Amino acid sequence: MPEASTPRAVEAVAALDVGGTKTTAALVTRQGQVVDRATAPTPGRAGASAVLDTAAGLVDRLRARSAGTSVRALGVGSAGVIDRTTGRVLSATDVLTGWAGTDLRGRLRELLGLPVAVVNDVHAHALGEARHGAAAGCETVLFVAVGTGVGASFVVGGTVLVGAHSAAGHAGHQPSRHAGSLPCTCGRRGHLEAIASGPGLVDEYARRTGRPVEDLRAVAALAEGGDEAAGEVVRLGGTAVGSAVGGLVNMLDPDVVVIGGGVTGLGEPWWRALRAAVTRETLPGLDAVPVLASALGADAPLLGAASLAWETLS
Amino acid sequence: MPEASTPRAVEAVAALDVGGTKTTAALVTRQGQVVDRATAPTPGRAGASAVLDTAAGLVDRLRARSAGTSVRALGVGSAGVIDRTTGRVLSATDVLTGWAGTDLRGRLRELLGLPVAVVNDVHAHALGEARHGAAAGCETVLFVAVGTGVGASFVVGGTVLVGAHSAAGHAGHQPSRHAGSLPCTCGRRGHLEAIASGPGLVDEYARRTGRPVEDLRAVAALAEGGDEAAGEVVRLGGTAVGSAVGGLVNMLDPDVVVIGGGVTGLGEPWWRALRAAVTRETLPGLDAVPVLASALGADAPLLGAASLAWETLS
Repeated sequence: MPEASTPRAVEAVAALDVGGTKTTAALVTRQGQVVDRATAPTPGRAGASAVLDTAAGLVDRLRARSAGTSVRALGVGSAGVIDRTTGRVLSATDVLTGWAGTDLRGRLRELLGLPVAVVNDVHAHALGEARHGAAAGCETVLFVAVGTGVGASFVVGGTVLVGAHSAAGHAGHQPSRHAGSLPCTCGRRGHLEAIASGPGLVDEYARRTGRPVEDLRAVAALAEGGDEAAGEVVRLGGTAVGSAVGGLVNMLDPDVVVIGGGVTGLGEPWWRALRAAVTRETLPGLDAVPVLASALGADAPLLGAASLAWETLS
Repeated sequence: MPEASTPRAVEAVAALDVGGTKTTAALVTRQGQVVDRATAPTPGRAGASAVLDTAAGLVDRLRARSAGTSVRALGVGSAGVIDRTTGRVLSATDVLTGWAGTDLRGRLRELLGLPVAVVNDVHAHALGEARHGAAAGCETVLFVAVGTGVGASFVVGGTVLVGAHSAAGHAGHQPSRHAGSLPCTCGRRGHLEAIASGPGLVDEYARRTGRPVEDLRAVAALAEGGDEAAGEVVRLGGTAVGSAVGGLVNMLDPDVVVIGGGVTGLGEPWWRALRAAVTRETLPGLDAVPVLASALGADAPLLGAASLAWETLS
């Protein structure tokens, strides 16, 4: 017998991007369309339960206002190292107090009554770009996020290689000649992140000029205004990232490199230095690898997390 | 009806390791036992046909003297970048004249009448160690070969990630602070291979002392005899490799690192420097990654190639 012609509920999954400063939730279709979203500040200092309640509250809000949509599962991209098998937070920086050890998958499943997939936020971002964004259709994707930290992810055949301890992608913690012996956030010295991250560049400007600035925007504005030291710092940042990316291209031979993160906002001078450094490092046969800007912006981690949510259902 | 009890032929595959100076053939069982082997100098300057004839001749010799063995397929590990889909040599150094462009798979299939699998020799070495050697049972393996060049291979779930252009594994062509701006064999500058390869260390000793030496054995002998510059060069080599390996561990988070190649013969002082540098670079959570010596030596590429030969039959 044919089904009655009552309109079927639209199917969607919920996605969460839990960052150090804000949390975003979205409803996403199987085709990767964001149909609704909501954002709130992350109560990072208030502990894991407060963060989880905020996140679940955002998802509930979206469910409440999407009467015609059936929300089937939840995908989460979160700051921190996330155990791929248990969905627990293995480690995290101090920005999220008490985040390490949190049973992210179990607690959100309880709070929301949905199947839950959890992944690191940089890995989620890479997956979003690989499946729906700048690298759609590519077999192997090297994604590098340059922001407060420098992270990466290597995606092969649509799957993030998360590593033996779920800790793969710490591209910012490669030795960089440009970092000299600067202390790194990880406790080691001379790593890429120490010079090429947003805070790294802000510090470098102060070291060079003796004039501290508030943030990376200030460095960018100075560079645009013709401040020579600021221009040099911007180019140094691009060069340091590009040099490391070139070395990784020689090692991994990806189809495409995608670069995202807030530092990309430094614009053309940064990108020019980055691309020149990639070309300078890569083997003659590999120097034509496309180096693209992240195409999905803040939606990328949501779409990556959503794609994992869909997989929990298949 | 039960089969007659005539003894069944032992099944094996042939494996070839085609290097710049010598070519080795072996017969290998499904369990990874080498049952016979033969070696000849590679006629590298005489062109691809001469190299192929030598290689096929070695396999024929093994087949002729193994009356009770049924040789089912051939696996080849060869110098050069090998196209994973066509089995052709995409590029190679001058050591093998005319090697680039050779249809390695097609020509050996014609010469020997066997199904043929072809892979780069470093990739074959990694596969041998991953399936039968130091890394047996590990899901993800970072293999690094330090010899005339510095190559690598990342093995995931028993499969070598060969890359978009079959060129993955050029770990020697990562920027290294220890290489300064030394010219590299690839035409770029400041790469790991320029300082940490065998020739790189020989050159470094000459630069430091003004006294050229013939080869790496000479540097090793001087270091053992208490020559301070030679000792420093040995430690520099280990440090440079270890620093790069540490960066790759942070990026890839492998279960295990395996190091092979002739330069490992520099012994404990080189290994100590290498391991210290790995520890110095790796993130606190990753600094316990085992760093092991290649366990199979010259058999590793043969066993890796043989395992691919078995796969052509399944």
